[in-house]
This record gives sequence, C-alpha cells and structure tokens, in this order.
Amino acid sequence: MSRIEMAHGAGGKAMQRLLEQVVIPSFGLRKIGTIGLDEMDDGATLEVDGQHLIVTTDAHTVQPLFFPGGDIGKLTACGTLNDVAVMGARPVAMTNTVIVEEGFEIETLKTILHSLNAVIEPLGVAMIAGDTKVMPRGTLDGLVMSSTGIGVVYLDRPVADSGARPGDDIIVTGPIGDHGTALLAHREGLKFQTDLVSDVAPLWEPIRDCLDVGGVHAMKDPTRGGTAVALNEIASKSKVEIELEESRIPVRTAVRSLCDVLGLDPLHISCEGTAVMAVQSSETDRILDALRHHNITKNATVIGSAKEAKTARVTMRTDIGGRKVIQVPTGEPVPRVC
Amino acid sequence: MSRIEMAHGAGGKAMQRLLEQVVIPSFGLRKIGTIGLDEMDDGATLEVDGQHLIVTTDAHTVQPLFFPGGDIGKLTACGTLNDVAVMGARPVAMTNTVIVEEGFEIETLKTILHSLNAVIEPLGVAMIAGDTKVMPRGTLDGLVMSSTGIGVVYLDRPVADSGARPGDDIIVTGPIGDHGTALLAHREGLKFQTDLVSDVAPLWEPIRDCLDVGGVHAMKDPTRGGTAVALNEIASKSKVEIELEESRIPVRTAVRSLCDVLGLDPLHISCEGTAVMAVQSSETDRILDALRHHNITKNATVIGSAKEAKTARVTMRTDIGGRKVIQVPTGEPVPRVC
Repeated sequence: MSRIEMAHGAGGKAMQRLLEQVVIPSFGLRKIGTIGLDEMDDGATLEVDGQHLIVTTDAHTVQPLFFPGGDIGKLTACGTLNDVAVMGARPVAMTNTVIVEEGFEIETLKTILHSLNAVIEPLGVAMIAGDTKVMPRGTLDGLVMSSTGIGVVYLDRPVADSGARPGDDIIVTGPIGDHGTALLAHREGLKFQTDLVSDVAPLWEPIRDCLDVGGVHAMKDPTRGGTAVALNEIASKSKVEIELEESRIPVRTAVRSLCDVLGLDPLHISCEGTAVMAVQSSETDRILDALRHHNITKNATVIGSAKEAKTARVTMRTDIGGRKVIQVPTGEPVPRVC
Repeated sequence: MSRIEMAHGAGGKAMQRLLEQVVIPSFGLRKIGTIGLDEMDDGATLEVDGQHLIVTTDAHTVQPLFFPGGDIGKLTACGTLNDVAVMGARPVAMTNTVIVEEGFEIETLKTILHSLNAVIEPLGVAMIAGDTKVMPRGTLDGLVMSSTGIGVVYLDRPVADSGARPGDDIIVTGPIGDHGTALLAHREGLKFQTDLVSDVAPLWEPIRDCLDVGGVHAMKDPTRGGTAVALNEIASKSKVEIELEESRIPVRTAVRSLCDVLGLDPLHISCEGTAVMAVQSSETDRILDALRHHNITKNATVIGSAKEAKTARVTMRTDIGGRKVIQVPTGEPVPRVC
C-alpha cells in the first residue's frame, strides 16, 4: 500500500486499514471526553466544564451533485445531523465549507445551499460558521463540501457503538440500500429502474422519540460500506454476535433487482436516512411504535438479535435455511456515494 | 455575476459580495450566542447551558502542498487555531476532513498529518473527529482538507472584530505579507528570492499573554486579502477610522522587493502567523512586551491608531507625507494561498 486507491475512501476494510495505519497514529489521541478519534465512532464527545457535546465531521464528494431524492446540500445536512443523532445527541449547530471549481454556476450553488438549509432550519439547527474556497478550472470536479455537526447529549450519556448487549433486538428503521443504488442507477443511466430514489433524510426526530422510550443501547446510520459495516462495527465494539434473519431484512424490489443484475449485495450499499439500533428487547415494541409514527421510519422492523459469543461477528440465517458470516466489504462498491 | 470566479474565494470584495448575496441569505441565521454567520467574524460563539465556546471552520486548498516554511498540514492547524485564538479563545479541539485524489502517495499524506499534529499536540489541542474521502484520478488536484476549530473563551467574553475604540493603538505582531509572497515565489520558481519563507505559526501562546495583560479590544489574523482586509473589517465593524503610518508597517526587504517587481501591495498579501490588534493605549507597552517574549511575535510593533470618524475606513500616512485610503482589494492577488 503506497498510493491512495478508491477503496481507501469507501468505508470498508481498505479504509479501516488506512485509518488504523496512517491517520490515527498521526495524532496524539488526546480526548476531551470518553469517545475520541480512536474509537472510530460516528462522532466524538467534547466535555468542557461539565457540558457534554457531540462533534462529528464529514467530507461530501457525491457525484452527481443532484440525484433522485436529493442533492449534495441535502446530503451534507442529513449526513452531518444523522451522525450527531445516532450518538444520542440533539443537533444544535453545524459549520460548512464549500470548495468550488472556477466557472461553477452561482445559481446551482444557491440551490445547493438552500437545500441544505431546508433540512437544518426546521430542526432548529444553526449554521454558525462557513468558508468558501475556489479552485482553478480543471483542478476540481465541480464542488465538494465539508461539514461539522455539534449536538447536545439528549439523555445522561451518548449512545456509543459499543453499547449493544446480548439479548438486544436489532432494528433497522427502513429498507436498506436505497441511496447507493439510486445514485448508481442515475449515474449509469439505467433507465429501467424508475423507482430508485435515495432515502436521504434527517433522522433526529424519530431517534429522539426512541430515546424518550429508553433502551437504545447502540445506534449507527449505515452510509459507506452499508449495513454490513454498521452492524460489524456494533458487533465488534460491543463484543457480541449479531444474528440476522435474511427474510426480515427490508429491501425494496427495485433495489434487489438492480443488485441481482449487477452482482451487488444490498447489505453493502449505503443508506442516508436509515439507522440500525440494538435495543433492550423489552422496549422493542414501544420503539417500533415510536418509529412508525414518522414517515421516513414507518417501515422499521426487527431484523435479528444480539447474543453472547466467543467471536464478535455478524451472521445471517439465509432464506434457504443456511447460515453465513456477513463480512465487512473491502470498500463500498459504488464510488463517490456521499 | 453568474459563474464562480477565482476572486470569489480570494478574501476581498468579490468574496464579500458572494457571501452577502448568495451564501448568508441561504441560511436561517439562527444564532447560538452573540456572534453568528452573518457577523462574518473569524468564528462564531456557541452558548450551550452557559458554556461559552468558539467555533471556526476553514477549507484548505493551498498549492503547492509543500512550500518554504510549511505545508498544508501545518497551515490547516495554524489557520484553524489562529481563528479561534483571535476570537479570544483557548483552542481545545479540532476536526479535520481530508479529500484526496486516487493515486496520491500515502507517505505524503502521513507527512502532512504529522505536520498538522506537530502544531496541535504541544498546545494540548485534541483531534477529535475526522473523515477521509477519495476522488477518482483527474477529478481533484492532489489533496484538500477542511477543519473546524473549537475553543473556550479565555476571559469573560470573546474578542470581536467590532470592539476597537477611538484612541486604541493598532499593533501588528510581525512583518506582513510573508506567506503569500513565499508561496508566489516558490510557485513561480522565482529563485532570486531565497529568503522568502511563510510565517505560518500558531499564535495562541502570544495572544494568551496579551489577554492576560488586558485591553485587547479587537483582533484578526490577516489571511486572504491581507492586512488591508483585516483592518478594514475591524474599522467598519467598530465604526472607527484606522490611521496607519506607512513607515511603521514592518515588511521584510525580500517581500518588498518582490512586491515592487510584480506591482503588488504588501498590505494585500496574506499572512498565516501574524495578527493585528486594536488595544487600549494605556496597555500598549505591556502588550508589546508580552508579544516580544515569543519568537514568532518578537517584532510586534504599533503601526497606527483608531480614531472617531464619520466614515469608518482605513487610511495611511505615506512615507512621502501624503495620506491615502487603504481599500479592500477585489481579491487576494495570489490564488490558492490557503
């Protein structure tokens, strides 16, 4: 490994290696709170004078900038706020930098920023700081953005990836793989799939209602690398085995068809408005009920459970009765998905 | 104005128009504290449960990635922490996103991240969150980074651009224009200038000592657009006239020579380790004394004063006895300087 490959940014094993071998060892790993860079959670905690904040950051390089169901502005807002929300924190503020290519249409930039604001303003999230840089024509493909989200822990402590316990139910808040397949189909001009639309949406309100119920032990939003990566992270950090039932995993017909045609696994495809949760089984019904009150999580369902195991891993009982291990993919199969 | 031009990212009038007409009106302008996006200060305040934080953000597109005196890693660290420091806040944490082109040397990435860490670690600043994205070869010129800085207000309130008062002395902490000219000379291969080195350095420690003295009313670090932009912002937001003495403005001989040859004004060239301050004149000597105890600010000096005036502006008494108005340039004359 001497040069950056596409897989290094794709959320799977290659990225994990780059983070573990290059990025994380570069820093002193001082923490201000319990969760820092080396936990590789969705965000970090920042404890200053007893105040418990959550800070997350993301770069956004999605291509194309406009896709079925959203654009880079909406994606930036949702990606940022969802990372805060799955840490069990109420998003309160964000910052955003824009790097744009010389010659870019200013009206398009406006549309993107309005789209970002349309997500954050109704949630009461303040855009508090920004920066704009221009790169000469030909040195950047259009526009990229980087954002930081800041939230206030909603209950007494954050929801960490490491919180799942044996006996927990595993919930997914909606069908998986919509975002990655919608982008792929749109990009490749696969016109036969007309109903593939990204799920990009802000999850704070449904998540808040789940936190109000109680019993949410671990939570992630599966983006790059998909549900397989999100569940493997929960399993390995919580030291449990997560056992899935293939028949219970919600996948839209169009998503399944496209994956079948291209030889992709829906578990490896990114979502941008869906979360997975490990929840206390006694609260499962009330949590599902809370989720089903919100349009974007109305198809929430239990897809498996966590159990004690010697080896932390994710397994799946398949439709034909077998059992297989769900691996972390080398990388997200669809590049520049977020 | 229908397409993005280089000047839109260059810190001067064109960028100000883009911010005022496109970026800022896109957002709801909710604030969490006294200073928000629309103040266009170096950062924003974030007040949560009585905790007074400062948040700043910057995108970094400097070209080349390595230059005399530093690299994009050091620049990212200093740019971020200095924005926090000139708001009168102690930097405590930062986040950083890396967007890198497929094929980039991983050793080079390591060098850049180590260089970033070499600035923040000795200051006790925690790198708490990050993200890495890869763009396909040919869609990005190498590597860009975006960072967010978080600080805790050091005294009872932040130091805003609007705090200068008539009678204040205007201090500059060192010679101006080193960063932009060093980059320009290096980039253009102007070998005759061998002693042009960027001033990129973290300013927190000298600034802390000034805050300990007291009487610091306004502070900025002149980056894009240079000292002219920084002083004009202080003058217009504080509603004062700033009167400079040309003979007192420190400019290195090499910087002045290069500017003379290329027809540039050192007041328009960016610095990355220099600050301007408006200070209570009774404290000027003690503040200069505090600054001179630090190597990077040992040449601190008074370059003018603030006075009451009908029109907020910056003027300069020239060496030949005249008086001219120091305008905000349309843009930084050197592109991709930070």
